[in-house]
Amino acid sequence: MTGTLYGLGVGPGDPELVTLKALRLLRAVPVLAYPAPDVGDSFARAIVASHLPGGQMEIAIRVPMRVDPTPAQAVYDAAAVEIGGHLDAGRDVAVLCEGDPFFYGSFMYLFGRLAERHRVEVVPGVSSLTACAAATGLPLAARNDVLTVLPAPLPEEELRPRLQAAEAVAIMKLRRHFKKISQLLEETGLYENARYVERATLGHQRVLKLSEVDPESVPYFSMILAHRRGAAWR
Amino acid sequence: MTGTLYGLGVGPGDPELVTLKALRLLRAVPVLAYPAPDVGDSFARAIVASHLPGGQMEIAIRVPMRVDPTPAQAVYDAAAVEIGGHLDAGRDVAVLCEGDPFFYGSFMYLFGRLAERHRVEVVPGVSSLTACAAATGLPLAARNDVLTVLPAPLPEEELRPRLQAAEAVAIMKLRRHFKKISQLLEETGLYENARYVERATLGHQRVLKLSEVDPESVPYFSMILAHRRGAAWR
Repeated sequence: MTGTLYGLGVGPGDPELVTLKALRLLRAVPVLAYPAPDVGDSFARAIVASHLPGGQMEIAIRVPMRVDPTPAQAVYDAAAVEIGGHLDAGRDVAVLCEGDPFFYGSFMYLFGRLAERHRVEVVPGVSSLTACAAATGLPLAARNDVLTVLPAPLPEEELRPRLQAAEAVAIMKLRRHFKKISQLLEETGLYENARYVERATLGHQRVLKLSEVDPESVPYFSMILAHRRGAAWR
Repeated sequence: MTGTLYGLGVGPGDPELVTLKALRLLRAVPVLAYPAPDVGDSFARAIVASHLPGGQMEIAIRVPMRVDPTPAQAVYDAAAVEIGGHLDAGRDVAVLCEGDPFFYGSFMYLFGRLAERHRVEVVPGVSSLTACAAATGLPLAARNDVLTVLPAPLPEEELRPRLQAAEAVAIMKLRRHFKKISQLLEETGLYENARYVERATLGHQRVLKLSEVDPESVPYFSMILAHRRGAAWR
């Protein structure tokens, strides 16, 4: 009997936004794995830290952070070998995933390396997308709205036409791209109604108008939500 | 002290995909409200039925189902009055929302009627979007993918250019629009890689290729996910 690889969505940050299923599995498996920075704590592990019974094996997948993080292939190769060893030995492994495993997560790098030879189950989690909408206090999309999710690192010429055509829009992975995005939102008439959300569902969550944001201090865990109709759609 | 209106995301259907926060609140509030069909059981209530302690007041918001359901304004008006009465009397009310309250949900009709005069807290839930991706066993969006969410009832001339430009796409509210969508996906080169998901996370969940779907039996709780790169993006 080989083990199962669980991709566990642990939600956007609030430990209470973990699902019952994720909670059950993360307590039951013998091996936990999670992404972590070069130095310091894993955010995914921190989300569930208060739920852990203790005594589990843990694999911290330490991915070097760069200005524009590209997947560190060698790191994922090594992690996949280590995780694969546990699975072959019959031990279930849960990979803790911030938000949802299949929504812009790094889980896909392990999934791509392990899914063909191993049983994989993905447990969906509350994504940053809806967590940020809840934080703004405004619906993300309703009725027959088209919703467009855009990663901020895309080039301007790709972002501009999509923003021009957008009704409801979420822009992820902001960081050093905030100024570019801010200008594009002005150009495309979405600036006024846009809201910036930082660290949604955590104690130090912030929701700001774009004019209130310091472009130099935009963290990875931030998002802009905008809607062409603004608050009028209430 | 007036009460708080909670928009509680209860997830896509599996009772285990309720969050700890939703579970705590739905057990603690004196009044529950939920959408329900004209006749029969509420899906939102069924998701949490096994978690309920009993003894709470319940408000079933019975919205007449039509072929193309438009919000039944009078029904929401009446529900808002009833819920507002509880809030004014100091009783918290939790509205059970399938998936996430701010992701194409009917909660916005109550929110629009009550948010100005009452304290509202939205508790995000696992949305059908990521639940369906988990069911297909393929990432929804990764790296710098643009993700487009399209409601199927939109006219062809609006859907076509968006599908032509789409990388990752989710198509909601399928039902009687399946044939139209299926043809548009063929036209725009997305048909082969598309997957149809029905009743994600429930016992009778089905994941099918589009060619395997009977267009006459497509329920409301179904979605199509497609990606231009297909499975190659692993």
